[in-house]
Amino acid sequence: MSGTLYGVGVGPGDPELLTVKAARLIGGAGVIAYPAPLEGDSLARSIAARYIQAGTTEIALRMAFDPARRADDVYDAGAEAVAAHLEAGRDVVVLCEGDPFFFGSFVYLFARLKDRFKVEVVPGVASVMACAAVLGHPLTARDDALVVIPAPRPEAEIEQLLRGAEAAAIMKLGRHLPKVLRVLDRLGLTAQARYVERAGQPGQRIRTLAEAAIDGAPYFALILVHKRGNAWE
Amino acid sequence: MSGTLYGVGVGPGDPELLTVKAARLIGGAGVIAYPAPLEGDSLARSIAARYIQAGTTEIALRMAFDPARRADDVYDAGAEAVAAHLEAGRDVVVLCEGDPFFFGSFVYLFARLKDRFKVEVVPGVASVMACAAVLGHPLTARDDALVVIPAPRPEAEIEQLLRGAEAAAIMKLGRHLPKVLRVLDRLGLTAQARYVERAGQPGQRIRTLAEAAIDGAPYFALILVHKRGNAWE
Repeated sequence: MSGTLYGVGVGPGDPELLTVKAARLIGGAGVIAYPAPLEGDSLARSIAARYIQAGTTEIALRMAFDPARRADDVYDAGAEAVAAHLEAGRDVVVLCEGDPFFFGSFVYLFARLKDRFKVEVVPGVASVMACAAVLGHPLTARDDALVVIPAPRPEAEIEQLLRGAEAAAIMKLGRHLPKVLRVLDRLGLTAQARYVERAGQPGQRIRTLAEAAIDGAPYFALILVHKRGNAWE
Repeated sequence: MSGTLYGVGVGPGDPELLTVKAARLIGGAGVIAYPAPLEGDSLARSIAARYIQAGTTEIALRMAFDPARRADDVYDAGAEAVAAHLEAGRDVVVLCEGDPFFFGSFVYLFARLKDRFKVEVVPGVASVMACAAVLGHPLTARDDALVVIPAPRPEAEIEQLLRGAEAAAIMKLGRHLPKVLRVLDRLGLTAQARYVERAGQPGQRIRTLAEAAIDGAPYFALILVHKRGNAWE
């Protein structure tokens, strides 16, 4: 009898923003796995740390942080390491920043293992919702359309996507910030845009777009836009 | 010293999909408030029920369920009932299905009270992420754009929004299902669309689009679309 693969969202950074179910599964896990940099600590593990019991077997999926490159060899090896436990009848809990199925690297393990093992996904608080909470500004109301746009997309596509919806979340800013700021300016949306980096993480910072333009943005920075501005009443 | 207004996401329906922070705030609350139908139980309260302590003061914001109409008078009265506690120095925890700032009715209380009181929003698991987990299918990966579309939007707008992104979540289906199915068919996306109703709630059902077309959809039904189909590898 094979074990079950759990993809468990640990939320955006605050250890209290895990779900009760995630905390229970992590606390009861014999084996956990998580993405990690080549050296140093895993963000997903650090978020979940207080729930991990002593004696839990840990699999760190270590890879170079390069958003432009899929680490196929790391996921192939990681999937086999996870599969070995599953085949031996042990459940494996994979820790996923935010939500596992919303821009999560869990999808690469899922693709490799879903046809061989039982999989259960536990949704988590996504970064977009956490950013709206931190910024104190609603994401959507009534019948707003919301578009979520990864900033690495070409400039013309970002502009087209922004034109079509009342609300937008632009993710993975990093070095793409100047391009995004140009588009917002061209569409007259600069005043309706709000910036936050590392929401819910220790380095959380809210800054103006002008401040971010000078200092640059990390990868974990988001811009939220709402065309109605403050008109929620 | 006035109290703090907490807008707390309770997730899509499963009481284990509340965050640890939501459970803590609800358990420690002197006063809670929640939306409720004119008669009968509140969905938000039922999700949070196991965390509510005996002796907690409860404010039910009762209103007719009519998605097309904003219940301004109910929110005006509800805001004043909440404000009376805040002015007396008592914190008030407002229970919100899903996430408070993602199509939540909390925005109407927020708009009425944000300039008078300290407000903290605790993000929750949103229905869109919960539906992807239930359907066992990723919402987004890599640099996908995702568009969230309320089904009451005009047919031409739904079509335009669907054309522009790789992934889509179409919410609030109800009587708008036939219109949405027409658009999906016109765009050749029927085979890449997945349907689920009441995800995480007791009446949760996954059905084919053809089954839903015959029986009709409730308001709490979603269609998720991904243009890549199963190509996650």
